Amino acid sequence: MKRSFIREILEAIDEETISFAGGLPSEKLFPRDDLKVATLTALDNPKIYQYGISNGINELREQIASRYTKEGFPTTKDNILITTGSQQAMYILAKFFENKDITIEEPSYLGAMNIFRLNHLNMFGVKLEDDGINVEEFEKSFKETKLAYLIPDFQNPSATTYCDEKREEIAKIVKKYDGILIEDSPYSELFFDKKNIAISSKLPKNSFHLGSFSKTLVPSLRIGWIRADEELLKSLMIIKESIDLHSCGISQYILAEYLKDEEKYERHLQEIRDDYAKKANYFSEQLNKIMPEFKHQKPKGGMFLYGSFEEGIDTFALVQECLKKKVVFVPGNQFYIDKVPNPEIRFNYTHSNFEQIEKGIKLIKSCL
Amino acid sequence: MKRSFIREILEAIDEETISFAGGLPSEKLFPRDDLKVATLTALDNPKIYQYGISNGINELREQIASRYTKEGFPTTKDNILITTGSQQAMYILAKFFENKDITIEEPSYLGAMNIFRLNHLNMFGVKLEDDGINVEEFEKSFKETKLAYLIPDFQNPSATTYCDEKREEIAKIVKKYDGILIEDSPYSELFFDKKNIAISSKLPKNSFHLGSFSKTLVPSLRIGWIRADEELLKSLMIIKESIDLHSCGISQYILAEYLKDEEKYERHLQEIRDDYAKKANYFSEQLNKIMPEFKHQKPKGGMFLYGSFEEGIDTFALVQECLKKKVVFVPGNQFYIDKVPNPEIRFNYTHSNFEQIEKGIKLIKSCL
Repeated sequence: MKRSFIREILEAIDEETISFAGGLPSEKLFPRDDLKVATLTALDNPKIYQYGISNGINELREQIASRYTKEGFPTTKDNILITTGSQQAMYILAKFFENKDITIEEPSYLGAMNIFRLNHLNMFGVKLEDDGINVEEFEKSFKETKLAYLIPDFQNPSATTYCDEKREEIAKIVKKYDGILIEDSPYSELFFDKKNIAISSKLPKNSFHLGSFSKTLVPSLRIGWIRADEELLKSLMIIKESIDLHSCGISQYILAEYLKDEEKYERHLQEIRDDYAKKANYFSEQLNKIMPEFKHQKPKGGMFLYGSFEEGIDTFALVQECLKKKVVFVPGNQFYIDKVPNPEIRFNYTHSNFEQIEKGIKLIKSCL
Repeated sequence: MKRSFIREILEAIDEETISFAGGLPSEKLFPRDDLKVATLTALDNPKIYQYGISNGINELREQIASRYTKEGFPTTKDNILITTGSQQAMYILAKFFENKDITIEEPSYLGAMNIFRLNHLNMFGVKLEDDGINVEEFEKSFKETKLAYLIPDFQNPSATTYCDEKREEIAKIVKKYDGILIEDSPYSELFFDKKNIAISSKLPKNSFHLGSFSKTLVPSLRIGWIRADEELLKSLMIIKESIDLHSCGISQYILAEYLKDEEKYERHLQEIRDDYAKKANYFSEQLNKIMPEFKHQKPKGGMFLYGSFEEGIDTFALVQECLKKKVVFVPGNQFYIDKVPNPEIRFNYTHSNFEQIEKGIKLIKSCL
């Protein structure tokens, strides 16, 4: 089994290369000063350095639960398990469901697919449409698998967001077959227009809802979480504890301190949304101007812009050429189960400035 | 499969309970001021908040490698993989060797045995003697499994330390059958007398050597590592990356900053050794005085004191009684594959003061 293409690229490229490949948030938006203040206060907490409990510190779990409740999804700290990034949340669930069949979107998150392979899950892909997964095909597949992994908000890689009707229909199908939905939501807060309703809120006993601070604050803290029914969550504890006993204590206390000022966090989120919306617009405009043969929808949130050339262009071959000219992206075939070359591309637009965006697209165009 | 008895106790006991159960280091020895200084400097590093590479930051891997090299075990940063505690190091290896047979010591580390079970490894126990594993039995078992998990320094739970001859013999056997040794060494720095030679240093191409900062600095940073041959290490990357992309960046930068002053770290280690040696002595003396029917060896390092009553006493039943009187320890049967009740006990002596040690032993005695 191969390592993640994205992680390998991230380690191989030099500092001059323009990267539209990773899922890196913009460093300029990291609230460094506020995090420093939070860290200084957190360091005085006598508990900060000792071993902690496996599900995470109470303060942070309460803060996360409170955000769900305010959004109309009643949640207590006992519904929250703190994980080492939402990557680990995914790993824990894949280990829990090892050897099972699972329905996923196609295209889907590369990291999740690698985790499923590693834990011997058998993936069944269902096509994503512009307003979410194809519901009829989803039901056909879910009836058999009774387990699904979906990213309904600003999906990675496609930027697709499910419409309200499809959210309702998916929830009904999961309940009908008494199955389980794994709803991955690292980008939910990064909306340009409006926040969507979690599908999990319609099936609190049949879902794992995954969140992360990596895209909204900073990734290096490695803090994410799983929101689930208390009994479901308990069944994951043996795995969480086996993997790393508990997630980084210092990170948890820093976050709990930072999140005490909810308004500050909201202002920070708004700042990210505004910045990313501008970049998404600019990226889309420049694509239309410089490389109009690349068809795409302008993103409504998240970190990615997805689209396609016409049939016949192999973007996996193209990226090897682009790498020589010092610009990279992720070719669409990486996000499919069979990885057959295709004309699609995922662009990350959050980690480049306007100049790099324009220059990068021109470089790609020159490789066509 | 059940959760770890120790983790469950840790979560269940109240603040009044005297705990000889966990493996908690003494909070009084945490270098809070020095870590605060290191943190403040680390926070100014522009890279501290972004995603990092999966094997860990260069600075920290170089510092760890340099300590090995100075001890006569030539190592570069490319031999080091940073993990989220050495617990994760163990998990990564168990996942890598899933479904395989493995030779372990009996008694052995409870957490490792749980991880092996979770990853469907088939464990074969070989009896520990006062100077290390029974070599003849080890060879018989290793010939078949070609994979072993050993804790040669101040073993958890038994406090056993391998003599130099047995280290040589184990290395020869692993080489003879071209197998793999997983050498777990979280306590190696906590010697009261002298540092031992890692068995892995005699078979650098056939070993994974595991280390941790949880016992020498603070546990909540969740930073450990695997030292191995570069090619062996590469084969673990897909698993590491699937589990959490990379270990906490903030923790890594704090550690790298702290470790710049090697003499300071050495002074700190000496302080821990002196403190733990005093506590080990006191614990042993009090046991001899209050409960002489509990036979044990005085520890030569590490965090645990292990011993046994005479046959017929079931310490798993005893601990339930002791819990009511607000004192806990880990009954010996937890450290065996079959968990059959036995008269053995593991005491942690690092997390209690002299008063608690005396009081706790008296409470246990009153339950006999």
